[in-house]
Amino acid sequence: MNTLKVALLGCGNVGSQVARILLDDGQDLARRSGARLELAGIAVRNVDAPRDVELPRELFTEDAEALVKDADVVIELMGGMEPARSLILRAVEHGASVVTGNKALLAADGPALYEMAAAADVELYFEAAVAGAIPILRPISESLAGDRITRVLGIVNGTTNYILDQMDTTGADFADALKAAQALGYAEADPTADIEGLDAAAKGTLLASLAFHTVFPLDAVRCQGITSITAADIEAARDTGFVIKLLAIAEKQTAKDGTAGVSVRVHPTLLPRTHPLAAVHGAFNAVFVEAENAGQLMFYGQGAGGRPTASAVVGDVVAAARRIVSGGRGRTETTGEQLQVLGEDSILTSYYIGLDVADQPGVLAKIAHVFADHGVSIEVMRQTMHTEDLPGIADGSAAAELRIITHRGTEASLAATVEAIKDLDVVNSVTSVLRVEGV
Amino acid sequence: MNTLKVALLGCGNVGSQVARILLDDGQDLARRSGARLELAGIAVRNVDAPRDVELPRELFTEDAEALVKDADVVIELMGGMEPARSLILRAVEHGASVVTGNKALLAADGPALYEMAAAADVELYFEAAVAGAIPILRPISESLAGDRITRVLGIVNGTTNYILDQMDTTGADFADALKAAQALGYAEADPTADIEGLDAAAKGTLLASLAFHTVFPLDAVRCQGITSITAADIEAARDTGFVIKLLAIAEKQTAKDGTAGVSVRVHPTLLPRTHPLAAVHGAFNAVFVEAENAGQLMFYGQGAGGRPTASAVVGDVVAAARRIVSGGRGRTETTGEQLQVLGEDSILTSYYIGLDVADQPGVLAKIAHVFADHGVSIEVMRQTMHTEDLPGIADGSAAAELRIITHRGTEASLAATVEAIKDLDVVNSVTSVLRVEGV
Repeated sequence: MNTLKVALLGCGNVGSQVARILLDDGQDLARRSGARLELAGIAVRNVDAPRDVELPRELFTEDAEALVKDADVVIELMGGMEPARSLILRAVEHGASVVTGNKALLAADGPALYEMAAAADVELYFEAAVAGAIPILRPISESLAGDRITRVLGIVNGTTNYILDQMDTTGADFADALKAAQALGYAEADPTADIEGLDAAAKGTLLASLAFHTVFPLDAVRCQGITSITAADIEAARDTGFVIKLLAIAEKQTAKDGTAGVSVRVHPTLLPRTHPLAAVHGAFNAVFVEAENAGQLMFYGQGAGGRPTASAVVGDVVAAARRIVSGGRGRTETTGEQLQVLGEDSILTSYYIGLDVADQPGVLAKIAHVFADHGVSIEVMRQTMHTEDLPGIADGSAAAELRIITHRGTEASLAATVEAIKDLDVVNSVTSVLRVEGV
Repeated sequence: MNTLKVALLGCGNVGSQVARILLDDGQDLARRSGARLELAGIAVRNVDAPRDVELPRELFTEDAEALVKDADVVIELMGGMEPARSLILRAVEHGASVVTGNKALLAADGPALYEMAAAADVELYFEAAVAGAIPILRPISESLAGDRITRVLGIVNGTTNYILDQMDTTGADFADALKAAQALGYAEADPTADIEGLDAAAKGTLLASLAFHTVFPLDAVRCQGITSITAADIEAARDTGFVIKLLAIAEKQTAKDGTAGVSVRVHPTLLPRTHPLAAVHGAFNAVFVEAENAGQLMFYGQGAGGRPTASAVVGDVVAAARRIVSGGRGRTETTGEQLQVLGEDSILTSYYIGLDVADQPGVLAKIAHVFADHGVSIEVMRQTMHTEDLPGIADGSAAAELRIITHRGTEASLAATVEAIKDLDVVNSVTSVLRVEGV
């Protein structure tokens, strides 16, 4: 049995777990790989820094370049753009296969890296970069290679799913749920990237590139976070049989000019409680895939964390080793289909709209008229009377709460409808506007 | 670009959809495979039989042997043992890769087929044989190759899931839900294989062989169907926050003598409503996997049906083509770990027990005493008073309903506990005994 040298770049939360698995489970990994996997070294910025996992001191080095030069498989878990990018290119030049979990680098520079790897006849693996431990790369690019994916809906950010799930199960408001998430280490001190949907947007573009073989620029993602979601929104959703989830949605659609295109958007979304994604609780992630022949599929698991992500990384290392052992040319991800990137005008979605309206004859007709004028059709309209809990209605006139779910329409027409409704004199306020999927 | 000849054996529900995809989506498949996939012919018993899908008549042949002899990839969708087995062996001898969806053949003869394929340096693909369209083979054997799977819980029979879901959502009893399933084509006229759990048992052994690299004989599966599940069971489960699902459970455990072993069992199971498997509705399937590092994963989708299953078959055809194009030695499934097959004595599970008991002082103590005597500890015990709805308690003495969930124990000790409880004079009847997972 041959021995393959494995170089590990980075030894944080995930890297230290990868090192532990490579050192502890050598026998199993050798049997599955067809080669012994020797951890040749671990490149870090400071060999003396404290580590969570106890690892042999002699493995550590600050000379990443030298480590890479000698390796058969290079695992890049440093994160960020440089020196990660240069070291990956160096590895590829030396004919090593590369395993990376570097979302940011792939989102920014994936296609160039794929091409480089293909030209050098080595493989680039990145299962860990998309939804942590959830196997999604192979199912999409191999199992579904005989099908056509039409849509991907992902709960790909554990922090926001934890917050929304807390709000749903305990009735907490956003600020308290965020504090709970921070106390448990699910949210960072500066939670902006998570709660504003930016992390989900980056993962959405990676999912789009896998599912549709199309590079999607991060700045073309329409992105809305969860900071404006209130306890009242959550409660209204529950009353109506829905749950609110932050989804990254990558969708293949036919644009107005008839050509196929792809859109990616991130926003809080109402989902029916019977939808499989509605059962994704806590900090778990899930990716829901719709394909022409396979129909609906879902992949569920932990999207982050040292050990789960390390499982995905080591799976890729075994795959790389098997490929080296079995020979044959490598296969890389393609962006060969490069579908048109669709903007807001082409996105079809349906809206949930919550309104406080005056309870007087003709209100429903006036509102329905506005929808009709904008070419938006109404799927469900429900009215609830309430007088006591509305401030400012002290003159004795009754108010009512109106909840409307529309059929699918363009973002532009839906947004224009909401603006026009705000101007109606019978409308006290628009209390909530959320997008709806899965109905 | 090379052309690869694809032979299709069988043209039923799945086969006809496979043929349609190969004929209609040739351009996409060629781009993804790196070779043109030419459907060389379709072997059937009777070329004149009517088909669901319109296909060119000249493709049909009754001479399967001749078709196989010339093919690069052979798709076997005839089902059953012979001539499927002989034709697969003929294909392997001729150096063709084989794609099959034949559960029965793989359960009976998988290891011999894997060895044969390995010896001939060709590959055998069978994603469609396990849970239909759900990608499970690659996630388990590739994505999780760097991890250790400890347990697999599968909803792998759509018929029984549909029936139990109907009972749960409509309050129907078993007989009515079965009729509804038959009316919709989800259950066959003779539903025995589904409702007695035999189909789930066969799939459970396939999952065990994938997850634990161990051949598991079908007759060692402990198997119980859903025919005895009543509307009252379902209602009691709902009251307690549970749902009843028919699960195939493949588990790695340490046997009493300290060696690692595997057990496979199929039975109706109480699951907490918050468990991801509880959200699998209708005829959908899902496979829930627990691994040491990855933690909990779930794969959800359609477990049957022509188009979904065809998606899995064509995915395998593309994989086979890619391997032929890229060169390199094939890789086959191994059963190399061959863990010990564990029997009932080694299976640990927890029980839900429903009892009708006399409502008099000391009843709980007597019952708790029986549990203690058998070394079974109680997790939850809940008592509900009811007098009016119990026949035979006309003497004015009150009766109560007692619901007990135990901690995990061996099947033998749990079963002995139930027997001993039946003999207590304070126990009117044992109304329900169900196993519990996911708590």
